[in-house]
Amino acid sequence: MKSPSSLDFLTEALRRLPGIGPKSAQRMAYHLMQHDRDGAGLLGRALLQAVKRVHHCASCNTFTENELCEMCTDSERDATLLCVVETPADQLMIEQTLTYKGLYFVLMGRLSPLDGIGPKDIHLEKLIARATDGVVKEVVLATNFTNEGEATAHYISETLKARGIRVSRLARGVPVGGELEYVDAGTIARAMLDRRST
Amino acid sequence: MKSPSSLDFLTEALRRLPGIGPKSAQRMAYHLMQHDRDGAGLLGRALLQAVKRVHHCASCNTFTENELCEMCTDSERDATLLCVVETPADQLMIEQTLTYKGLYFVLMGRLSPLDGIGPKDIHLEKLIARATDGVVKEVVLATNFTNEGEATAHYISETLKARGIRVSRLARGVPVGGELEYVDAGTIARAMLDRRST
Ligand SMILES: [Zn+2]
Ligand SMILES: [Zn+2]
Repeated sequence: MKSPSSLDFLTEALRRLPGIGPKSAQRMAYHLMQHDRDGAGLLGRALLQAVKRVHHCASCNTFTENELCEMCTDSERDATLLCVVETPADQLMIEQTLTYKGLYFVLMGRLSPLDGIGPKDIHLEKLIARATDGVVKEVVLATNFTNEGEATAHYISETLKARGIRVSRLARGVPVGGELEYVDAGTIARAMLDRRST
Repeated sequence: MKSPSSLDFLTEALRRLPGIGPKSAQRMAYHLMQHDRDGAGLLGRALLQAVKRVHHCASCNTFTENELCEMCTDSERDATLLCVVETPADQLMIEQTLTYKGLYFVLMGRLSPLDGIGPKDIHLEKLIARATDGVVKEVVLATNFTNEGEATAHYISETLKARGIRVSRLARGVPVGGELEYVDAGTIARAMLDRRST
């Protein structure tokens, strides 16, 4: 009656994926064995290859297969600007705006004391070393505008300013195209406080 | 700026898992690379091992690593009874009731014409061969009491009865502990029609 041990092993291993409970893991294992063995093989090889090849960029901390990532070796970028983001996905969003030509530092997370995520987990020492290399003139904090992202920005800001680094933060305000009627009060309050002369 | 290709490959491969879209796949890939490389390696090995070792029992169609699964080689089971279930999980549920001592046939699915799942996909030929082996005296249909499960039971029932096999279906009715006030009308109606003398 027991499932074969390889299937149990697979079901257990699938639970290492974030957000996958025992029921989902079992459903996934059955699905792969029943309907998509090619997919299972592909995923297995992809996982082992990624574990072997992917590591952190020595300079910006993002994922790369080389010592330095592509962007950090791009001499066209403005090395005096360093933008701090939580994830590679956030970095990609900023790149898509075409408004920023500096370099990045990817925290790979955010401070979250309740989840036991402290300064070490967001590679703060590496960020300090990077920001104090003598070339960087301004650090732009682009962590999320969530409670945790704001706390992370505040903590990094204090830490870097204590070392004489100029630090800025992305502006908050009413989204482009936003109708005041549908924007939350906190955003409007912030937009009012941060209002700019025209 | 591009993610390293091994990471792209992993993100793509994760989408082969049922219910995982592009955002979830990316989140999973980042999580594994950032926080659980051991888990990624484990899952990779588990997938490749399962693809290599797991196949279908020649008799009952469930997953096994041998020619026949453990239950099919258990001489203590009553070989005159054959219970048809949709999945190994359903089989496990029935085993846990300790009310059934016969053997099983696992369809590994249910008929679902809208999804293109026909008789071949639920291994109907294999079930017919199994049910007409001369030893089986009764086939108990234990597919789900969903529309698709009922349709599947009906189809199998007609097919097997045409070959002279005795076919039964799990009883429907009010769940044990069920309060009529909270049971749906369809269930009560069925329980009324299927009422038993006491
Ligand atoms: Zn880099
Ligand atoms: Zn079997």
